[in-house]
Amino acid sequence: MPEIHYATSTGPVNIATLKYWGKRDKDLNLPTNNSISVTLDQNDLKTLTTASCSESFKEDHLWINGETYSLETPRSIQVLKDLRSLREELEISNNELPKISQFKLHIISENNFPTAAGLASSAAGFAALISSVAKLYKLPTDYSELSKIARKGSGSACRSLFGGYVAWEMGNLENGEDSKAIQIADRKHWPTMKAAILVVSDMKKDVPSTSGMQLTVKTSDLFQYRINEVVPKRYIEMKESILNKNFQKFAELTMKDSNSFHSVCLDSYPPIFYLNDTSKNIIKLINLLNEAAGKLIAAYTFDAGPNAVIYYEEENQDYVLGMLYKFFDKLDGWSNDKFNPANAKIFDSFPLSSLDKEIYSQGVSRIILTQVGEGPVETDDVLIDLETGLPKK
Amino acid sequence: MPEIHYATSTGPVNIATLKYWGKRDKDLNLPTNNSISVTLDQNDLKTLTTASCSESFKEDHLWINGETYSLETPRSIQVLKDLRSLREELEISNNELPKISQFKLHIISENNFPTAAGLASSAAGFAALISSVAKLYKLPTDYSELSKIARKGSGSACRSLFGGYVAWEMGNLENGEDSKAIQIADRKHWPTMKAAILVVSDMKKDVPSTSGMQLTVKTSDLFQYRINEVVPKRYIEMKESILNKNFQKFAELTMKDSNSFHSVCLDSYPPIFYLNDTSKNIIKLINLLNEAAGKLIAAYTFDAGPNAVIYYEEENQDYVLGMLYKFFDKLDGWSNDKFNPANAKIFDSFPLSSLDKEIYSQGVSRIILTQVGEGPVETDDVLIDLETGLPKK
Repeated sequence: MPEIHYATSTGPVNIATLKYWGKRDKDLNLPTNNSISVTLDQNDLKTLTTASCSESFKEDHLWINGETYSLETPRSIQVLKDLRSLREELEISNNELPKISQFKLHIISENNFPTAAGLASSAAGFAALISSVAKLYKLPTDYSELSKIARKGSGSACRSLFGGYVAWEMGNLENGEDSKAIQIADRKHWPTMKAAILVVSDMKKDVPSTSGMQLTVKTSDLFQYRINEVVPKRYIEMKESILNKNFQKFAELTMKDSNSFHSVCLDSYPPIFYLNDTSKNIIKLINLLNEAAGKLIAAYTFDAGPNAVIYYEEENQDYVLGMLYKFFDKLDGWSNDKFNPANAKIFDSFPLSSLDKEIYSQGVSRIILTQVGEGPVETDDVLIDLETGLPKK
Repeated sequence: MPEIHYATSTGPVNIATLKYWGKRDKDLNLPTNNSISVTLDQNDLKTLTTASCSESFKEDHLWINGETYSLETPRSIQVLKDLRSLREELEISNNELPKISQFKLHIISENNFPTAAGLASSAAGFAALISSVAKLYKLPTDYSELSKIARKGSGSACRSLFGGYVAWEMGNLENGEDSKAIQIADRKHWPTMKAAILVVSDMKKDVPSTSGMQLTVKTSDLFQYRINEVVPKRYIEMKESILNKNFQKFAELTMKDSNSFHSVCLDSYPPIFYLNDTSKNIIKLINLLNEAAGKLIAAYTFDAGPNAVIYYEEENQDYVLGMLYKFFDKLDGWSNDKFNPANAKIFDSFPLSSLDKEIYSQGVSRIILTQVGEGPVETDDVLIDLETGLPKK
């Protein structure tokens, strides 16, 4: 049997604090505005991917958590085509390299988090896929270059090529060659940044984000003002707040931008709603917490769905998680390693007794406690059975 | 006992289709943008008010549905002061008039709709109060002039001085003398306009609209664009759509402006939410209805609360109310005089079977079927006991 070439890499989840919403080019996934995100710790949320290729493989194949997925979507085709042509260039310039660029690929992925949770897993997935194929192909590890390929797969995936605090520069070129991710600061710059994710159950199907964006671009009157006036200023300020580790400013901008993004969704015609009553209750709890603290110690943000991500600094963990524990103690996901409920603190002025726990604890199914994390990491894991060319197990 | 002078008038509810949100002067209730509303039929929603005055009365007094309310609020004081000085001018210019301007007033009001429903009753209340006192004082019945006084009582009340389709021109003067209501068209111009109000129960207290407006003006980035760019254009287009009886255009603008208003609320910091999951379900039903119809046959609008007002034309009543009846047949408020369920029609392409009635019928407590109506009407009703100077009964 011909040799199977393989390589393994991880990919992290990123959660935007300055939101990407709107495409100026749908095929190339070019955005209408710059965005910023925080990469989350892969101990809690990651995709692990082994990319393999062999003369014996008959078709490009993808498995995620043991299930087969198509690689014949326009976006996957584009991503693989880009990676193959980079490999081909190497092979042409260096005759000693094995000619593997046209071999079919078997890509095997595993997520360490429930896919049903509605957490944007496509960013972690594309980041791991691209990192593992880049390693397999021995491509230069310029992550900004690779981020352009990730961008074509799933816009916000480009930000998952870096750890820490990441900007996606929208770029101006028509071919998108300047629309790429850059690292603002690595995770060690501001390592006290923590995140708690509240997974909110929602029976209703959301508007998929691609069609949602297109509807907003086409119909929202307020959208143009957001991308032309609001975001450019906020982008500069948010970068500064990260570089200065100014949580007050970072939190304010993060919450305002989440509000602004959901506003232009609601201003679309027909309107798009991603926040539900549970999301609104979480927003209220965070606002009350910050009021009681007398400063901003927690910042909520919501992507295109009802799940809440709460950023906070380690020094305030006992208050932030202490408050959340009062309402959500029954959820899966609490871990004594990360937070001991005995340390929970509640501000005297937090109006705990006037908030009906029955109401405020409704609709949340899980909590994930995590922190700022690193970018894709090459590993020695092997998810492929080298005898069969199929997923192990 | 000294003579009791009295007069009685009604005041209607109006529901904005182009929303008033934002004050440029809080004391004078001067708005940041023009607005447009439809006055609703007083057979369904009205305040009836007898204004009376007498030398024997010791204090200004207000009763609404038998309960005592204060007239010592800054807004009520201002309204009564304005009305008294107009009367005083008349008394000075015509010596034969009885000198009643400084007599204390007893004002007795009754609403024909449940006040707990959260329907903006203050507009109807101020309209009836001002009309009845104007009649009592024999003031000239220039309703645009009276609307300026109503405006000081409760901004949107100024629009309740007219029937039919009403604009509130924001004006530019600092003293507010050009900020007044005018009639775009009376109810006979487009008499086929109907409205259904879905009263939505909400356990949580809304942000009061005055403080909500101030928060939006102060904190929303998108708000300035709304008032400077979006509303001025929409104001002209909506007036035209009314004058041309163009329901397609009227419906589109009405829904878009409701969305836009709630967007700038959500863009406030902290965000303000008036729509809840029930409101969102109603929006979805109306969108599906319009899609099934292949044109706009119903338009939703939401004020600063979760209640939905649905405008539609009589010719589509069997479809609009037919669809609503499928979900809300259990509610109080259906009347065979207005709509016979046997006439209910459902478009073949309306996805009735895929919508869970249990979910979509939740959270609505009452339906009110009404139509476009007239402005304040003087009546011969007497709500005061002329012996005691107190409410009858």
